[in-house]
Order: sequence, then C-alpha cells, then structure tokens
Amino acid sequence: MATIVMKFGGTSMAGIERIRHVATRVAREVERGHRVAVVVSAMAGETDRLVGYCREASPLADPAEYDVVVASGEQVTTGLLAITLNAMGMKARSFLGWQLPVTTSDAHGLARILDIGTDALNLALDAGVVAVIPGFQGMTAGGRVTTLGRGGSDTSAVAVAAALKADRCDIYTDVEGVYTTDPRIVPRARKLAKITYEEMLELASVGAKVLQTRSVELAMKEGVRLSVLSSFSDEPGTLVVSEDEIVEQELIAGVAYDRNEAKVTIVAVPDRPGAVAAIFGALAKANINVDMIVQNIAHDRPLTDVTFTVPRTELGRARKVLEAVRDQVGYDRLIADENVVKVSVVGVGMKSHAGVAVTMFRALADRGINIQAITTSEIKISVLIAEEYLELAVRVLHTAYGLDAPA
Amino acid sequence: MATIVMKFGGTSMAGIERIRHVATRVAREVERGHRVAVVVSAMAGETDRLVGYCREASPLADPAEYDVVVASGEQVTTGLLAITLNAMGMKARSFLGWQLPVTTSDAHGLARILDIGTDALNLALDAGVVAVIPGFQGMTAGGRVTTLGRGGSDTSAVAVAAALKADRCDIYTDVEGVYTTDPRIVPRARKLAKITYEEMLELASVGAKVLQTRSVELAMKEGVRLSVLSSFSDEPGTLVVSEDEIVEQELIAGVAYDRNEAKVTIVAVPDRPGAVAAIFGALAKANINVDMIVQNIAHDRPLTDVTFTVPRTELGRARKVLEAVRDQVGYDRLIADENVVKVSVVGVGMKSHAGVAVTMFRALADRGINIQAITTSEIKISVLIAEEYLELAVRVLHTAYGLDAPA
Repeated sequence: MATIVMKFGGTSMAGIERIRHVATRVAREVERGHRVAVVVSAMAGETDRLVGYCREASPLADPAEYDVVVASGEQVTTGLLAITLNAMGMKARSFLGWQLPVTTSDAHGLARILDIGTDALNLALDAGVVAVIPGFQGMTAGGRVTTLGRGGSDTSAVAVAAALKADRCDIYTDVEGVYTTDPRIVPRARKLAKITYEEMLELASVGAKVLQTRSVELAMKEGVRLSVLSSFSDEPGTLVVSEDEIVEQELIAGVAYDRNEAKVTIVAVPDRPGAVAAIFGALAKANINVDMIVQNIAHDRPLTDVTFTVPRTELGRARKVLEAVRDQVGYDRLIADENVVKVSVVGVGMKSHAGVAVTMFRALADRGINIQAITTSEIKISVLIAEEYLELAVRVLHTAYGLDAPA
Repeated sequence: MATIVMKFGGTSMAGIERIRHVATRVAREVERGHRVAVVVSAMAGETDRLVGYCREASPLADPAEYDVVVASGEQVTTGLLAITLNAMGMKARSFLGWQLPVTTSDAHGLARILDIGTDALNLALDAGVVAVIPGFQGMTAGGRVTTLGRGGSDTSAVAVAAALKADRCDIYTDVEGVYTTDPRIVPRARKLAKITYEEMLELASVGAKVLQTRSVELAMKEGVRLSVLSSFSDEPGTLVVSEDEIVEQELIAGVAYDRNEAKVTIVAVPDRPGAVAAIFGALAKANINVDMIVQNIAHDRPLTDVTFTVPRTELGRARKVLEAVRDQVGYDRLIADENVVKVSVVGVGMKSHAGVAVTMFRALADRGINIQAITTSEIKISVLIAEEYLELAVRVLHTAYGLDAPA
C-alpha cells in the first residue's frame, strides 16, 4: 500500500464542477488501495480577492491579520472537497493548518514550515480516510495563523509528503508537465518525462513557473518524488527526481526566459574602492534583487560604467534608491532600459560537457542577436538580449540544442 | 473601566468602507477608556454564497465539513476589522473560535456554546488591545470547527459578554432598536427604550427578527445587559433587561406578526384515542413544527375536524407526511390554507391585568376580522387571521393598546 500526496491548484478547484472532477481523480487512487492525502489551493481568483480586501483596508496591512484573511480561501476549498468526496461515498475529512498542526516560522505572509504533525493524519489514512489539507496555511508556535507566500500550496504538498514519507507527491496543475520550452513560442517543444530537481530550480528561477521554487528545494532536500501533471488530461506528466535517477542525461533540459528584467547602466562611476559597493549596498538595503552585473573596462580612468539588471517591476524603486546615492557615489548619470529579456539554457549535462556556451553564443550571433550580459551557474547559462528577439532566440536555441520534437 | 462587547452584523461589515465606519464606532469606546471586544458577522451575502457552494457540492453536505466552509466568512471580516483598527492606530488582534477557544457541542451547523476561554482575551484587553472575534463559529472538544446556526453571531456576542462579565453587550444592526410594531405598517410605531428579555423572546418567536432567539435566552440566563442599536445612526437604541429594571411597565410592549403560517384542516377524523396522536406524531417525526391547534367539537360523532398551523415553508412536506398516514388515521380529506397570518400582542404587563384579550378580540371584531385560531402564553396572545387583514389588524391593535406615538 503506497502513500500518495495529491495537490490541486486554484484552476482545478475553481467551482464545484471542477472540484467534482478532482474528486474522481482522488477516487482513482483510493480504488488502487493507496493511502491518500490531498492538498488544495483556494479557488482561482479567490486569494487575489482576499488580498484586495486587505490592501483596501490598509496598504500596510498588519501581517498577522492579513494571514487570517487570506488563509480562509483554502479553508473553503478544503471543506468543499471533503463534502464532495463524502457525497461520492468515500470517507474523507479535512485537517486545517492549526489542526494537524502545520507549525511554521513567525514570518507572516512568507512563513516557512518547521514541522507537520502526522499522528491524526496517519490514524485517518490507516482507517482508509482521505485527508484533505489546505495548502498555503500554517500556524506559529504561538498559535497564530500564517501563510507561506504565493504559490505556497506546492510547498505545503511537498512538506506533507515528506512528513508522511509518501511514495509520491503528484502536483496537478493546468499544464501537462514540464516542457523543453514554452510551447506557445515553440510548437515543437517536448514534454520532459523526467527532470532533475536542480534543473527544475533553475527553470523556475528564470520564469518557467510550474512549481514554486521552495517546493522544489524542499523536495530535493527531503528526497520527495515529485510529479507535475495535468488535472485536465490523463497524459503522464513530468517526474522531478534526483540526478542519479536519470540514466540517459540530455545535455540541455530546456530553454527558459524571463521578461521581468530591466537593465540599468550607471555611467561614469569613479573607479575607486567603495563606489560600486555603495551602489549595490543601497539596492540590497531596499531589498531590490540585482541579477546580472557587468563592469565595463574603464578606458578613461578614473571613470567606469556599471551595468546590471533588476526586476522590471522594481525599476521605479531602483531609480529612486540610486538617485538618492548619486552624490555619495559621484556618478554622472543613469540609463535604464526596460526592453530586455533574459534567455537561459538549463541542463545538468553541461557540468560534464565543454562547449555548451559556445553553441549558445554562436547560434545567437548567427541570427544577429547581440548579447548584452551573461551569467552562468553550474547548470545554467543566461544571456540578456533585446526583448524584440525573445521568440527568435528561444526557437534558435531550442533547435541548436536538439530539443525540437520530431516533425 | 468598563468592559464592553460590541457586535456588528453582516450589513455593517459589507465592504471595507463600512468596516472603517465600524472601526470609528469601536474607536469611540476605546477613547472612553473601556476594555473592548468586538464580535463580527460575515459580510452580508457571504454566508449565503458559502452555503450555496456546499449545497451545490451535495444537498446533504457532511455537517462537519459544511462548518469548515461556512465558518470562513467570519474569519475574513475578523481579520479585516483587526487590520483596519491597527491602521487607525489602535491596538487590535483577532481571536478565532479555535484560538480562544469557543468550545461548543458536537451538533455541527447548530452547535451550542459550552465554554469560552478568556485567559488570552483578558490579557489582551488588560493591555489595551481590542479583541476581534468571529461570531457564529466554535470548536468541538475534539477540535473540529462548528457553527451555531444562522444568526448565531448574536449568541456568540452574548456568550463572550457573559464569559467576560461585560458591563454591556451592544448589538449593532441595521435597525435603530426594537419598535412597538413594524414601522413599515404603522408609521406611528415607537422605538422602545427598554424591553424585557421575555417580551423580546416572544416578539422574536412571532417574527420580529431583531435578535436571534438563543442570544436573548442566553442573555436572560446570564444576566447580560443587551442593547440593540443602529450602526448607521447615533440614536439611542433599545435596552433589553430583566423585568425588575422596568419601573413603568406598559401593558403591551408590541404587536408582531408572522407570515410564515399555513393552516391545515383534517376533515372527518375518527373520534377515537390515537387518531389525533397519529397525526401529530407523524409531523413531529418529520421535524415539522405544529403551532396553533383547534379541535372542532364533533357535531356528528364519531367524526371530528382537526385544524392546526405549520410553517408555510413546510406545508409541502406536511402534506406528504399527512397523506402517508391517511389510511392509518382514517380521515376523509385535508384542506390547506396558505392565506393566513399570525398576529400577536406581547407584554409582561398582561400577567397582572385582566381584559387584555378582550380588548384584542373586540378591536378585531369591530373591523369584521374573523379569528380562526388563538394561542396564548403568560405574556402573549396570538390570533390567526386571513392574510388580507394583516396590516389593518396590526394598525387597529397598535391603536387599541395605546401604542401610537403622539401625532
């Protein structure tokens, strides 16, 4: 008898008809004799509605009370799925965050799960009861309601799977799995049968938001066998596993992109110790994430140019922060460019292969696409290019690394 | 320093603008130096929406899971009011049903409050923190979510007031208090400055739904000084108190009516022991409440007619139940009349005065209004009349008992 954790997102829980459909998927696992725990999101749109109320009440809503409000969305779908499962003749009951309990840190709105109580849960599962658990929510040691941050239900599901030592954690979503790239850009993108945790993390960090990053980190740390599959089809999904489970390792798992990029160039920074540190120190203090950094060689010392990227959504704040330190740093002017995107190739295979980057640079150069900045990790190469080349670059790279499905 | 419990209904909590208005009322009590606990309902319409989801999921929704779903409405308004109070510079925090805890019976959907924990609550109030508490919700001893039934937030407020030994429990609603009768029918109806618990209970039971009946029973039992007043005006409301607090007792406190009445006549019932018992036994078994009963004198023994009233909303079910026992009882036929209403006069003064009923019967007879059935309690006289006379009867009685406001 296997223990299975199933997680359904907001699109899958949007309305009673879809919840009934979810219940039939749960029934299938129950009929196979498995012990089944189900983690659910709020109905699509509901969390936004609740967040909207909080912001309307106060733009700086008390975080503990914000959590009280927004955690209610998952409570509703949890009860409704339990009602539906019971009505279909299964035994089911809800276990809310405070009932298990899901103990978290005190960081309201972005809490981390510290522990999940499994006594009542295991008793229920052993008795053939389907446990329905709201994602996203937990409780501090002091007994206050917390939430895990947007997309936190994935993390809840993985944490429940880890606590139950589940055989599988199946994340049902509105896509059929993880693809080699965005199928809207490359119709010949292929669904991956398997992907490593590391690749999944890098893909998430560059904009392929199938799973919440923290859920993948947790699955990797706890060795949870994660599946991404569609609520709306019976196709097999993508299994996220450790590297040693993938025998035939592809060089590149996928090509991802991120439009939430803006390039900032600080022109004529005095080339002295502390000037660059003052720039990045001020941004860090304002909690603005700096990604790619290029320091141009200073032709006319003692002045240099510094180029870097920030999330496009943070550009306004970044400008203000940088203008405030202008006198202190002593730079000449600031140039911002929002028409940039980051395109990345990701694959654990590149660890053991040379020449992966060359393929990328050559493929882009052949099409006249200029690279404005580069960053690399052990399993990822990212380039910053003009936004107008986005689709072309993704297609060219997808072909260059042999990822296209057979025609 | 007084301890005040304030309760706000769904209309008062419907949207952030109204919640802000509620917060200013709370602020006024805080500025007076009082210890303040606030009990809130869900936003108007929200509980209906949640109940609708449950019914759509299953007409016979699992009651424990139904409670998980519908309790969420009050959680939302609780958090939003706490956010708003904090944003206005007050100290406030939420205490959910399971956090206090509000321990209830296991009767899901219609649970009774058994105990309210006050340790954390008193600590907060002593520290000048406004406690915001969701009405309607509680927790079983086993730790499952419960709800108290529609209108249960009034009862929550009274129970919190009793547990805190509060000096006042102020129920803010969308009317300005308790009136001598429905002002839509009698423009010269007067707002009562005071009313006894007993009168309030009788008025509620005959359709003047200002307060949930159980909340008044509980207030009477626990000696909670209850006020009914409007969220939307600064007029003084109506104080609900024990009889000995009312010095100048009026003979009649008010005239009430109930449209949810249907009259059933069972024609030609065999006049033998057990026949009538079989009729009312079957209705009781089906949980149909029988109110006024008239057994006609049997002119042509051994047959008699039995007339009684049931809630109009239950007439369809009552017919089915009665048709099922027709052969067993041996009656001839059933006549139902939905065009009836119950009109009642209520007042503790009638305990010590004779002739109260005569005034009623004479006033109605003078206008040619036929009385079809009568019931009385110590402080109430009710008559069943044809619905077309409803407004006329209420006006006539309001005048006959000297309740009209000075012109």
